[in-house]
Amino acid sequence: MKKLRIALLGAGRIGKLHADNLVRSVANAQLVALADPMLNDDTIEWAKSIGIERCEKDPSVLIADPDIDAVFICSSTATHADLIRESAAAKKHIFCEKPIDHKLDRIREALKAVEDAGVLLQIGFVRRFDHNHKKVRDTVASGRLGKPHIVKVTSRDPEPQSAEYVKTSGGIFIDMTIHDFDMLRYLAGSEVVEVFAYGAIRIDPELEKLGDVDTAIVTVKFENGALGVVDNSRAARYGYDQRTEVHCDKGCVQVANDLIDTSMISTSDGVYCEKPTWFFLERYNQAFIDEATAFVDAALNGKPSPVNGNDGLQPVLIALAADKSMREGRPVKISELSRD
Amino acid sequence: MKKLRIALLGAGRIGKLHADNLVRSVANAQLVALADPMLNDDTIEWAKSIGIERCEKDPSVLIADPDIDAVFICSSTATHADLIRESAAAKKHIFCEKPIDHKLDRIREALKAVEDAGVLLQIGFVRRFDHNHKKVRDTVASGRLGKPHIVKVTSRDPEPQSAEYVKTSGGIFIDMTIHDFDMLRYLAGSEVVEVFAYGAIRIDPELEKLGDVDTAIVTVKFENGALGVVDNSRAARYGYDQRTEVHCDKGCVQVANDLIDTSMISTSDGVYCEKPTWFFLERYNQAFIDEATAFVDAALNGKPSPVNGNDGLQPVLIALAADKSMREGRPVKISELSRD
Amino acid sequence: MKKLRIALLGAGRIGKLHADNLVRSVANAQLVALADPMLNDDTIEWAKSIGIERCEKDPSVLIADPDIDAVFICSSTATHADLIRESAAAKKHIFCEKPIDHKLDRIREALKAVEDAGVLLQIGFVRRFDHNHKKVRDTVASGRLGKPHIVKVTSRDPEPQSAEYVKTSGGIFIDMTIHDFDMLRYLAGSEVVEVFAYGAIRIDPELEKLGDVDTAIVTVKFENGALGVVDNSRAARYGYDQRTEVHCDKGCVQVANDLIDTSMISTSDGVYCEKPTWFFLERYNQAFIDEATAFVDAALNGKPSPVNGNDGLQPVLIALAADKSMREGRPVKISELSRD
Amino acid sequence: MKKLRIALLGAGRIGKLHADNLVRSVANAQLVALADPMLNDDTIEWAKSIGIERCEKDPSVLIADPDIDAVFICSSTATHADLIRESAAAKKHIFCEKPIDHKLDRIREALKAVEDAGVLLQIGFVRRFDHNHKKVRDTVASGRLGKPHIVKVTSRDPEPQSAEYVKTSGGIFIDMTIHDFDMLRYLAGSEVVEVFAYGAIRIDPELEKLGDVDTAIVTVKFENGALGVVDNSRAARYGYDQRTEVHCDKGCVQVANDLIDTSMISTSDGVYCEKPTWFFLERYNQAFIDEATAFVDAALNGKPSPVNGNDGLQPVLIALAADKSMREGRPVKISELSRD
Repeated sequence: MKKLRIALLGAGRIGKLHADNLVRSVANAQLVALADPMLNDDTIEWAKSIGIERCEKDPSVLIADPDIDAVFICSSTATHADLIRESAAAKKHIFCEKPIDHKLDRIREALKAVEDAGVLLQIGFVRRFDHNHKKVRDTVASGRLGKPHIVKVTSRDPEPQSAEYVKTSGGIFIDMTIHDFDMLRYLAGSEVVEVFAYGAIRIDPELEKLGDVDTAIVTVKFENGALGVVDNSRAARYGYDQRTEVHCDKGCVQVANDLIDTSMISTSDGVYCEKPTWFFLERYNQAFIDEATAFVDAALNGKPSPVNGNDGLQPVLIALAADKSMREGRPVKISELSRD
Repeated sequence: MKKLRIALLGAGRIGKLHADNLVRSVANAQLVALADPMLNDDTIEWAKSIGIERCEKDPSVLIADPDIDAVFICSSTATHADLIRESAAAKKHIFCEKPIDHKLDRIREALKAVEDAGVLLQIGFVRRFDHNHKKVRDTVASGRLGKPHIVKVTSRDPEPQSAEYVKTSGGIFIDMTIHDFDMLRYLAGSEVVEVFAYGAIRIDPELEKLGDVDTAIVTVKFENGALGVVDNSRAARYGYDQRTEVHCDKGCVQVANDLIDTSMISTSDGVYCEKPTWFFLERYNQAFIDEATAFVDAALNGKPSPVNGNDGLQPVLIALAADKSMREGRPVKISELSRD
Repeated sequence: MKKLRIALLGAGRIGKLHADNLVRSVANAQLVALADPMLNDDTIEWAKSIGIERCEKDPSVLIADPDIDAVFICSSTATHADLIRESAAAKKHIFCEKPIDHKLDRIREALKAVEDAGVLLQIGFVRRFDHNHKKVRDTVASGRLGKPHIVKVTSRDPEPQSAEYVKTSGGIFIDMTIHDFDMLRYLAGSEVVEVFAYGAIRIDPELEKLGDVDTAIVTVKFENGALGVVDNSRAARYGYDQRTEVHCDKGCVQVANDLIDTSMISTSDGVYCEKPTWFFLERYNQAFIDEATAFVDAALNGKPSPVNGNDGLQPVLIALAADKSMREGRPVKISELSRD
Repeated sequence: MKKLRIALLGAGRIGKLHADNLVRSVANAQLVALADPMLNDDTIEWAKSIGIERCEKDPSVLIADPDIDAVFICSSTATHADLIRESAAAKKHIFCEKPIDHKLDRIREALKAVEDAGVLLQIGFVRRFDHNHKKVRDTVASGRLGKPHIVKVTSRDPEPQSAEYVKTSGGIFIDMTIHDFDMLRYLAGSEVVEVFAYGAIRIDPELEKLGDVDTAIVTVKFENGALGVVDNSRAARYGYDQRTEVHCDKGCVQVANDLIDTSMISTSDGVYCEKPTWFFLERYNQAFIDEATAFVDAALNGKPSPVNGNDGLQPVLIALAADKSMREGRPVKISELSRD
């Protein structure tokens, strides 16, 4: 069986995670090189330890290499759009971490390049590959519960990001809720057409200066007539809280968090159970593997992208609309933004 | 021990429920008479069977009777405000089913009469006495989780009301969500200051003519800075879905539905558990008893009302604001309505 | 509708519980009198407060009264067999608390008297009326899971009985496990034919002098070929632990404890849930009502007893066999005892 | 960091599983060779695909190779004891699948050889590394619940083994329950001193000819005074049922099965949840990795064996005692066998 020869572009935390998975757990993947502008000895040693023999500083060198079939773009967000365009031009299949960009025109240019080149583009909305959320979606998509009425996403991080991080993050909606906006579309099987967002600062008063919030509730209208809601918090001290639910004609499907273990300890004080798995590395561990496996499968077998360019664009649109809604104190239609 | 001598005003379904509880399950209550404008032989026979000896058509006769200490107003909504005023004037303690009225000025007149007379008024927001929701509220109120950030209420009826019923119900927010608006205030320990509502018709297309909806998501801002959300459906085919959750500084408290039993049946097809208890009669059975017990206790011992006049007024304000929000497509401040 | 006129024989804790239920919650029951050899002013006042007008010291006076249809025997165990015989002779329907007696010959004489008189006898194995255990039994009895293989009963009291109590209790098997032996038969739908018991003193070293144990595991063979097991403890500090499970051809049905509420409180320390309802008064509250209702229904409508004389006899046989097994360190056949 | 150079002895299903884990998921392990008497092209190709370059038919060649530090004995049970002795003599560290042997004298000889050689021996009781069972054990071992009273293990396979397999398996106690006997010791932190076993044929009547059973309940007494019980079935149609529980002085710790996902689908028919993960490959997937990691760590760092020779011997003793108990219809002391 032919293997997909992959170059990793960006060897930060998420890049290393994908690299480990590609090497250890993804059939038919061959991670042959990496490029990172901050390349140093530690990275080179790590690369060697997992069998990557070629390390570059300049991604363009790898993108230009005809011996490479595909790239994993795991560099900083600001570089995504350009790397997509360059890779597409070089006819590489592309896995790109979310978001493509914060700017709509840059996203559109990147998607145009992908379309023109006819290459595969898969965006890193990893939660679609989680066994729990996937079960919700598959149950809704099967039609056995009839049409959806209410789509709910609870999404809370275990601990707040630093002010430093928040400053360049693009705000809670583009940084954190974007995953939940993807979930809404994925679970409902329909596009979001209007958004209303309430935000609040409940955890870190410093956010006021940055114009950001740490707590939010966003409600949406879907094209198919259903309603949706996301609730977000930057700090769930009990761990990563990731629950989804869809209420339909004939019933409701919902998933709870994966827990560290299934223990119940009963004493005179009460019954103690375990917390959710701590954060995304633990919760979505298998989903990251399945995501990469799906990419390799699609690339080798000419299958359509499981998370395509439009799937990358829409959550950004919703996030920008949510931000506008919160600032202007009114519901915002997605069409207002697409016209921009 | 002195008993509280009570007259039941209105012997429909909910009136009979309260009567049964007062007779069988509430200490120090003595249900001595009832009045119902539609009084018939069936009602008289039923009254006799539970030991009520006096049946009247005209409630005023009982309200005027100096031998009666308190009234349970369980008649149609349109009569509540007048009966409250008349009973207050006669110095009776008053338990009144929700809502007091759909009109703010009539509510205010009734509350003024109660205040002037110095009698007890308790509004029938029975869910406050449910063991589950009470646990959420007590946990938040204890402060052990710090201040609240997000308050969530899921509230779905098992099956849609008839179009006939909906016509005079005042709409979903005043008829159904009003209980959830009470829950929001109760759980957050703070007043709602602004509301945004999305509604949808997902179940019964007939509602369009009536200007009502059967599916809704309402988000609110609280005075203390927290955010809240209610999701409603008129049809949860698996039964009455009543869940609440408050996410706070140091953690989250949530309650699931009471189930018919705790069984798990595991087969090759999956694991089957029981559904929630069917509807409010089953789910809030004990809460109705505890509600009446609290009223009798407050009346006999001069305690403050556990659900007072303002607790009756605020959910109506929120419901009217939610209705306005849905119709005008914008968030509505409660202060806009209070100024009316 | 004719009401069943009932006399209460024995007004201790369990007698008062049945009396309250008969008065408040059981349709077509009329509790008209009580007899208690220790009758005092408190009991008379209590009786009056729930509407019982006649109080006697001597049960024979009530048993002889032709105006009484049925008796609830709630006196001390030593008196059960004689009161059954006397009541049967007087053609009264009989509800009798468990156990009928500790001696097999006295049980058999009592059952003979009932049979000769053709009256109804129902033994107070209240757990058969619990919504959870009943669901297990009904699922097995329906045949949808095929034939049973393994029947499991976990039964633990929240706190140990006093040495004083234990002294006259007949030992753990006749006092506590007897309910579980009834459950085994009820759930399996088959008779126990052999028993092996291990006992241990893990809680109260004083029990050694009394020849009793506080911890036990009893395994049984059923006539239908299935196996069963009970585990008992006198002290589950988290509350009354009452779980049952039947593993069958096509799957398994099990029930967990009823909990005080459904709350989950998640913090950095873990997730806290509520404990089981505290003890039998809380857990089997509704089952006691349903048990009495079933008795009144059977008496008034000539239905067979839901828990008949043989259902009273068999658990005593199993308990005696378990005791013998533990003392002799070998499995004991029920037939060894029946031959006695 | 030095790596442990390992040879795999036996490349059947379980051998391949360990090999995959050693190659992909265990730090500091280097799987350098395999030996399998049935070596064929498929095995050679598979070995190559995961980077094993040397394949032999004769394990002795590898055991004799001074370049190899450790062996994984995954061959058929009958060969275990000899391979242990040979490997110990060659000063290799030894991981050996359970059981060491069915015969006590052969086990003792093997353990003697290990002791004499001073090498590491770890027996493959993988469940000790499962996050759930480990949590039960750690909770008991911490002492926070006081001393244990009752230890319970439920262990049911999803589907019966073939008669062919059963014929040479040594019977249910040595083949299947042996894992549960290990769990009993592990959870109780104490040795089993006496066993009583009931067995039944409920699934496959063919077993009668083979003198085996498919359903069993085994009760035990521990040295520390606690009691224990295992219930086994060869067929749980809903999947691999693996639950453990320890009831202690101050409370109870129990673990439920890991489920395929956390979904709840609520409809008018009831609430459907997912089944347990299918069988040991799914349920103990991570435990197999952790087990191998612990071995490599102990070998490289001179730590004591997490599952030593006595841990391999005791469950065989209990299994033989259980078999004797079932056949002779009496409790059997472990000391009866050790004397043999």
